[in-house]
Amino acid sequence: MRTWDTLAVVGPGLIGGSIGLAALRQGVVGEVVGIGRSQTSLQTAISRGAITAGTLDLAAGVRDADLIVVCTPVDEIPYYVERVAEACKPGALITDAGSTKADLVARIERARSGSASWVDSVHFVGSHPLAGNDKRGSDYARADLFIDRVVVVTPTAQSRAEDVRDLRNFWTALGASTVEMTPAEHDRAVAVTSHLPHLIASAIAGSTPAEYVTLTAGGWQDTTRIAAGDPLLWRQIFFANRENLMAALSHFDQTLADLRGAIEAGDAAALERLLTEGKRIRDAVGS
Amino acid sequence: MRTWDTLAVVGPGLIGGSIGLAALRQGVVGEVVGIGRSQTSLQTAISRGAITAGTLDLAAGVRDADLIVVCTPVDEIPYYVERVAEACKPGALITDAGSTKADLVARIERARSGSASWVDSVHFVGSHPLAGNDKRGSDYARADLFIDRVVVVTPTAQSRAEDVRDLRNFWTALGASTVEMTPAEHDRAVAVTSHLPHLIASAIAGSTPAEYVTLTAGGWQDTTRIAAGDPLLWRQIFFANRENLMAALSHFDQTLADLRGAIEAGDAAALERLLTEGKRIRDAVGS
Repeated sequence: MRTWDTLAVVGPGLIGGSIGLAALRQGVVGEVVGIGRSQTSLQTAISRGAITAGTLDLAAGVRDADLIVVCTPVDEIPYYVERVAEACKPGALITDAGSTKADLVARIERARSGSASWVDSVHFVGSHPLAGNDKRGSDYARADLFIDRVVVVTPTAQSRAEDVRDLRNFWTALGASTVEMTPAEHDRAVAVTSHLPHLIASAIAGSTPAEYVTLTAGGWQDTTRIAAGDPLLWRQIFFANRENLMAALSHFDQTLADLRGAIEAGDAAALERLLTEGKRIRDAVGS
Repeated sequence: MRTWDTLAVVGPGLIGGSIGLAALRQGVVGEVVGIGRSQTSLQTAISRGAITAGTLDLAAGVRDADLIVVCTPVDEIPYYVERVAEACKPGALITDAGSTKADLVARIERARSGSASWVDSVHFVGSHPLAGNDKRGSDYARADLFIDRVVVVTPTAQSRAEDVRDLRNFWTALGASTVEMTPAEHDRAVAVTSHLPHLIASAIAGSTPAEYVTLTAGGWQDTTRIAAGDPLLWRQIFFANRENLMAALSHFDQTLADLRGAIEAGDAAALERLLTEGKRIRDAVGS
């Protein structure tokens, strides 16, 4: 199994900081260099034990890294992957932690094929850890964030089998189980399992009149929790996965229309059948 | 402040059992008689400390009670309130824990005005504790279920001020804060804060293909948690509050259409504004 001396994390926030914490805790890497945008956030990450060194200088930060994880907002991932590829050493492996994959992987592979400074031995394979919450910053980083979570790894025809294997081993060492999907398959799936719930949660919260807020209880609170997420990040995700999200929304609309029809018609059997179907799928996941 | 020697709970399940546990723990009552439909469930409630005695015989169970709480599914509440009123002692106060109020309170007041066996000194005032979850049965009852939760009390023109005051004091003693609303106001509010989220959660769960279930994470799980609720109970609630639920759904539809429009148009400013509005309302509630 490939070992990594130095891990670099571009954007050591909730996800990036948790990767650093977990990788150090598990002894998967010796050093974690955090590349941030302010000394304050780097200081926080160091004091949390999420990184062993921090710098604002991307080129300096990735120079000695064997593995680099780009944990920026999705729109910025291709840009940073390109900058990393120009500055890192031959043989380094680059991945990311973005919530969408098809568009950014295609942009990165186009950039790689057209780049003079991207050496042949530096490779990129996309990742998406299905973990995280509505918090931001390494203050909320946790060494156990990936334990029993799924990380989707998204190779393409250009990916080398050994990189995919090494990357899966890395995530496995952090406690996750890994799944391999094409970037397009990944985006179709997370449109349903992540992006649609976020959109709907926002619509529920946004349509709740202020005077009713004190009458909310556990159900509303659970259902709308992710609506507290960062609007800028989610705007980027929704745009990056627009087509799949709209398809998932159409499917949701149809199920909701069936429920509405049963309620309006007073059709007890149909309504119970639909509610039972939702319960069956929910029960399959556990609490 | 009025004291209660004996509390009777019709249907000592999650809510009814928690009322018994909390009332005994707080010393608000001396005895709690549970009226159930099987010896097994009564035995569970006794072993949990939720009731001090149990019976299948409604008339015997409520005979000595000063306060009776009917905790059955909403469709059965008027029936049981009438049976309680025929059997309880003069001066007793009856309430319920139903999730809808307008229809059942009207049915109970019509029954009272037309009943020969319902003595003048026995009164009913509706309650709705905004607590509970997708579990059923006194196995899940908790003495702290009402702490820091809201209980809506729904008096009408027929209600006596002292009964409303005593009932609010009872819930306050269990750790809740109380709010007074008319049954119609209550139903409009909970259509938005409880019934709509449940309907939507069911539609999200029901529209998730089985092959994607392993790719769900915290967002999907939070958003769909209440879809695990009992289909029969929720069918009754949706039917009992149909008009208000459909109005809440229309409002939700409009907010969702705005979000969809911004995504389809690629309107970043509009999408961020809508997501920020949802976040603002969600943040007002806390985690």
